[in-house]
Amino acid sequence: MKTEIKKVELENIVDEINKLQTDTVLVIADHQVWSNYSKDIILEKIENKKVLFWKAADGEKVKNITDFQNAVEFFLEKGIHRNAHMVVIGGGATSDFGGFVAATILRGISWSIVPTTLLSMVDASIGGKVAINSKSGKNLIGAFHLPTNVWICSKFLETLPAVEKNSGMGEVLKYCFLDYSIYDLVIRKAEMAEIIDACAKFKEKLTKEDLKENGIRKILNLGHSFGHAIEFIYNIPHGEAVMWGVALIFKLFGTEKNINDIAALKKSLEIPGDHSPWFNKEFPIEKIMMYLSKDKKISALSSIDLVLIKDIGNAEVQTISFDELQAIMEAKKDELKKFTL
Amino acid sequence: MKTEIKKVELENIVDEINKLQTDTVLVIADHQVWSNYSKDIILEKIENKKVLFWKAADGEKVKNITDFQNAVEFFLEKGIHRNAHMVVIGGGATSDFGGFVAATILRGISWSIVPTTLLSMVDASIGGKVAINSKSGKNLIGAFHLPTNVWICSKFLETLPAVEKNSGMGEVLKYCFLDYSIYDLVIRKAEMAEIIDACAKFKEKLTKEDLKENGIRKILNLGHSFGHAIEFIYNIPHGEAVMWGVALIFKLFGTEKNINDIAALKKSLEIPGDHSPWFNKEFPIEKIMMYLSKDKKISALSSIDLVLIKDIGNAEVQTISFDELQAIMEAKKDELKKFTL
Repeated sequence: MKTEIKKVELENIVDEINKLQTDTVLVIADHQVWSNYSKDIILEKIENKKVLFWKAADGEKVKNITDFQNAVEFFLEKGIHRNAHMVVIGGGATSDFGGFVAATILRGISWSIVPTTLLSMVDASIGGKVAINSKSGKNLIGAFHLPTNVWICSKFLETLPAVEKNSGMGEVLKYCFLDYSIYDLVIRKAEMAEIIDACAKFKEKLTKEDLKENGIRKILNLGHSFGHAIEFIYNIPHGEAVMWGVALIFKLFGTEKNINDIAALKKSLEIPGDHSPWFNKEFPIEKIMMYLSKDKKISALSSIDLVLIKDIGNAEVQTISFDELQAIMEAKKDELKKFTL
Repeated sequence: MKTEIKKVELENIVDEINKLQTDTVLVIADHQVWSNYSKDIILEKIENKKVLFWKAADGEKVKNITDFQNAVEFFLEKGIHRNAHMVVIGGGATSDFGGFVAATILRGISWSIVPTTLLSMVDASIGGKVAINSKSGKNLIGAFHLPTNVWICSKFLETLPAVEKNSGMGEVLKYCFLDYSIYDLVIRKAEMAEIIDACAKFKEKLTKEDLKENGIRKILNLGHSFGHAIEFIYNIPHGEAVMWGVALIFKLFGTEKNINDIAALKKSLEIPGDHSPWFNKEFPIEKIMMYLSKDKKISALSSIDLVLIKDIGNAEVQTISFDELQAIMEAKKDELKKFTL
């Protein structure tokens, strides 16, 4: 099973849909995206197929069980079958949601994604992780369900709000530590389209090898255990939280060089904001520990696997006990209070 | 990926749980089963593991999104991780439900089943099909998620109500047409434990070859498209509905020998009730067509794959248009009104 990643012009998305080998297409589009782009993606031009359209609440808001139930019941009531194909148009939250619908409706139908944010182009749309949120945390209810196609259309980036762009850049920054060629593209300030393609294909390669994240795929979680905690505690965008998650890993376990590298990449990617979210505040050790203990990535009651970076392109997964982790944070809490990049 | 099917004494189930390689066990047990058997399956004897227990509403009642949400949120709130293992104790409805929780919580954890009905021992517990019900039909929201172990404990059959036993026998009857050795065991009136083992292992073999039901696994659906419709329309037990589904396939597409065979097997399995559910009533063609059009097994808008039997052990899948199917039923509707076995 493989995902085809392809650059497509906005006005040609319907042509791609027309080429799908199915007589029934389920479309889920993010509400906000659809209000901007329904004039360009003209579903009426889909030929000889039944088209069912469901508009999703903006972004993360849709990732709950009630909306899941509403979408699934809507499609089932309209009448679909196992060879129906879903097309999700939106950012990572929309594809997380739509992918979970595709994974579970009739026990799973095939699907494709049109990612509309930088974050989803480089990360969320690749690798088949789909999910909705639980009261206990993000993405705790989900599945692994690879999309057949990811159609990348850089036109969407033109209208992307700065905050969304920066969030995506945070995830690009993460890739730089996992793969030297991506690091090099970013430091050389290559074309964004080239960087996106490199990130998406790097992730696709890892996830093809290890769909269920038992091995090598784990390195993609660099910065994410802390990142998810930071995202929830400070209510900041995902990619930005991931960047601070990576920075925190470096501060707790890394070297001066790691910190210099992340600062240089942040500059090259033009990510604004030098102060950590907890700057001049108490570093929230207890809250972080609470989120970590509920992290999907933990595999025992008393320890967590963290991704550490020896040098650019050289990642390793290390199991650390919660007690040890807490002690390390306690020891550095005064220093963390002043953490900037 | 393989499921280990093993006969276990009731009092040894906890020993099997103790052997699991995990520090956290999630138990879902059917309410009714638990009130009869909690004295025999003593969870307090589970050693060195965190045990989380969730009691499920009786049988099919639990297979809805609200109970799914409640169970998932319960376990997540208590704190689990990816290496946690779920044990489901109950009939097919409970394992359908529990398996869907196991398939989606943290994007999937491993699980084992203690089937407590004949139907679940020979069918539902094998092959990893898990699901909850939709407003539009049974099992329309689900996944494929193979259990690690199926622990078969024939003690449960001693307290099984006759209606449940007959329902299981309906599914055993189906296997007789798919595999000559099972047919032979039934006609020779072999021990029930032997028949159960043969059915479970026959299904395990097919599902290992074709988990996602793209090929050979489809033959297990013999009688099921009509069966599901009959089950809903007449509100009768699953296995009984499947038996009438098989009978209907034979009446519409089969031979006199097929009908004689099914009557002989029904007698050998001591399944009571000779009159079809629609006996002396109008045969409900329209309602059946409506259910078929929403069947999970359809793969196009205008046709359905039906399993037909040439002779014992010789099944084939045939695609039939809805128009043709309706015409065949219309042509035989008077005859169907008098259908008995």
